[in-house]
Amino acid sequence: MSTNNIITCTAAVAWEPSKDLQLETIQVLPPGPDEVRMKVDFTGVCHTDAYTLAGHDSEGKFPSILGHEGAGVVESVGDGVTDVKPGDHVIPLYTAECKECKFCKSGRTNLCQRVRATQGQGVMPDGTVRFKCRGQDVYHFMGCSTFSQYTVVSKHSVVAVDKSAPAEKSCLLGCGITTGYGAATKQSHIKGANVAIFGVGCVGLAAVQGAKAAGAARIIAVDTNNKKKEFADKHGATDFINPLEIHDKTIQQHLVEITDGGLDYTFDCTGNVGVMRSALEACHKGWGESIIIGVAAAGKEISTRPFQLVTGRVWKGSAFGGVKGRSELPGIVLDYLNKKLDVDSFHTHSRSLAEINEAFHDMHGDVLYVDL
Amino acid sequence: MSTNNIITCTAAVAWEPSKDLQLETIQVLPPGPDEVRMKVDFTGVCHTDAYTLAGHDSEGKFPSILGHEGAGVVESVGDGVTDVKPGDHVIPLYTAECKECKFCKSGRTNLCQRVRATQGQGVMPDGTVRFKCRGQDVYHFMGCSTFSQYTVVSKHSVVAVDKSAPAEKSCLLGCGITTGYGAATKQSHIKGANVAIFGVGCVGLAAVQGAKAAGAARIIAVDTNNKKKEFADKHGATDFINPLEIHDKTIQQHLVEITDGGLDYTFDCTGNVGVMRSALEACHKGWGESIIIGVAAAGKEISTRPFQLVTGRVWKGSAFGGVKGRSELPGIVLDYLNKKLDVDSFHTHSRSLAEINEAFHDMHGDVLYVDL
Repeated sequence: MSTNNIITCTAAVAWEPSKDLQLETIQVLPPGPDEVRMKVDFTGVCHTDAYTLAGHDSEGKFPSILGHEGAGVVESVGDGVTDVKPGDHVIPLYTAECKECKFCKSGRTNLCQRVRATQGQGVMPDGTVRFKCRGQDVYHFMGCSTFSQYTVVSKHSVVAVDKSAPAEKSCLLGCGITTGYGAATKQSHIKGANVAIFGVGCVGLAAVQGAKAAGAARIIAVDTNNKKKEFADKHGATDFINPLEIHDKTIQQHLVEITDGGLDYTFDCTGNVGVMRSALEACHKGWGESIIIGVAAAGKEISTRPFQLVTGRVWKGSAFGGVKGRSELPGIVLDYLNKKLDVDSFHTHSRSLAEINEAFHDMHGDVLYVDL
Repeated sequence: MSTNNIITCTAAVAWEPSKDLQLETIQVLPPGPDEVRMKVDFTGVCHTDAYTLAGHDSEGKFPSILGHEGAGVVESVGDGVTDVKPGDHVIPLYTAECKECKFCKSGRTNLCQRVRATQGQGVMPDGTVRFKCRGQDVYHFMGCSTFSQYTVVSKHSVVAVDKSAPAEKSCLLGCGITTGYGAATKQSHIKGANVAIFGVGCVGLAAVQGAKAAGAARIIAVDTNNKKKEFADKHGATDFINPLEIHDKTIQQHLVEITDGGLDYTFDCTGNVGVMRSALEACHKGWGESIIIGVAAAGKEISTRPFQLVTGRVWKGSAFGGVKGRSELPGIVLDYLNKKLDVDSFHTHSRSLAEINEAFHDMHGDVLYVDL
């Protein structure tokens, strides 16, 4: 099954922080044991890529190949790979699932730690890289590196999905949409619940969809940009509130008033720590739960009075929507194919790989994907 | 069933903040509809009483009869009272349970709101008081007012318990012990878990007992006072750590190291917001839950990096141990009678009602009860 050929292809390389990506001819080494080499057909561009490229990620390594929201086809596999084979349509997973570590076995989290340490260092689990450019090593990113026509990932970091799912849409399930959709659908009491979603960009709109799919009774979208109302409504929100239009009280006070005591669930999809506090304090006394999905800037802290928790509110969070990639992402792809989950409307722009820097420049407010 | 007689008896009256309680002859009016008049045989003295007496409680009303950790016998009941009758041994409940409000019906909280508003105002649910002293009205406290030989409580705020439970012990189940014991026993995954309890006073030691009763594997008591080790060991702790003796790292870093990644559950029983943060951050990535039990001083806030929650830790709290007083406290009294729960060792001093101010002065570090 193993292969020894080196693939020469094109990738967008991040040579150093705060500089544009450079289109380069690179060499992609063959997959080692327990590794999978795949052709990347499409990739999304995410704020996390931009964050690292801007140099804000203290763990960011350069040169590297960014990108973590991809979809494509398995080209070859190394020894020990049994779950995927050449020709399989796959989505790489920045949150791996080995099914064997303490975390996977716990049944209580999707945060597999099997490849976590090396992934954070930009290398494969054996400590080396599979990318070469101009004679030098190029680091991996988030275990995915989808800004390349070919990439190599750990077998724990990839899952086969239904072949009928178009890659230019399904790539978006590799991060943002699944993050919001999963976070909402995984809440155990969300059926019939009152829900508020703070920030309705890609992740927030997907959370709106998840809340609707799970049977929430009332879904309040909260955003300071009134242009988002149309999208929120389309995805299933029952209410739209612009906090800037609430006067004489805080947004949490307003939400508690209009929901007979507060929300059963709130979701922060902004990454703003002040909004995270509002989301918690908008929860219903006794049982309301607030889920942090957004990623805050380095050094920022959340705070509240402990009385908020002593009186029954719960503050928690989720990463990748709490979704176990290998076990559960194929089902979410089916939700998309069965029209339970709308992915198409998140696809707003198309660009070639050569235009990837434009995609970054255009990202504010939109979800983009790049044709590889 | 209703009675019209006024009882004249002795009570310790709090005339104004920061002054000693005054022993007074008071009049206790008959119970109105849905009210219960009881003879208080014993009461504990709690830091919450001291907090209010010191004037720190912005809702504190004077003159009032403090005390909320009592046990005694029903003397008479008003119309509409069916669950208790004269002669029943009872414990008054500062956390009521009406079984009818939105909160009680939710099945997800013990924070009944039926009498909450009037209780906070120091009056019975009809807005009036049942205590008179020197011709003037005296306010109730926490719906209990156990620093009196007789008191009147709402029928939602009292529960009959097994008559064989000695009141000088069972009174302690009206607050502190139940708060710690309940908080630990109610955690759904505590069997086999690694647990840390921060602060092992009355509430913390009761939490140690609860964790042991529920089958926790490792129970780490954390306290800055080494004298507490003996008590912690006696109640079931497997480890005792004094954070002041940990150097070159934080207590949470130390705990994470010695528990292969962190605790499954931590409990803050200190009321110190810095300790609350340590307790959260000592939790295991992916699923560790931290429960705030301690009551913080007014204006204090908790804080942490949101990354702690996004990576799977849960921050929550509980009041009165999450225990529904009327449904569940009788069972906890049985746990005591069946020697599953040690209450006797919490009983360290006895005093007469006339010595109640001495009881307050002596309270630091000890649990006291007062013979009425």
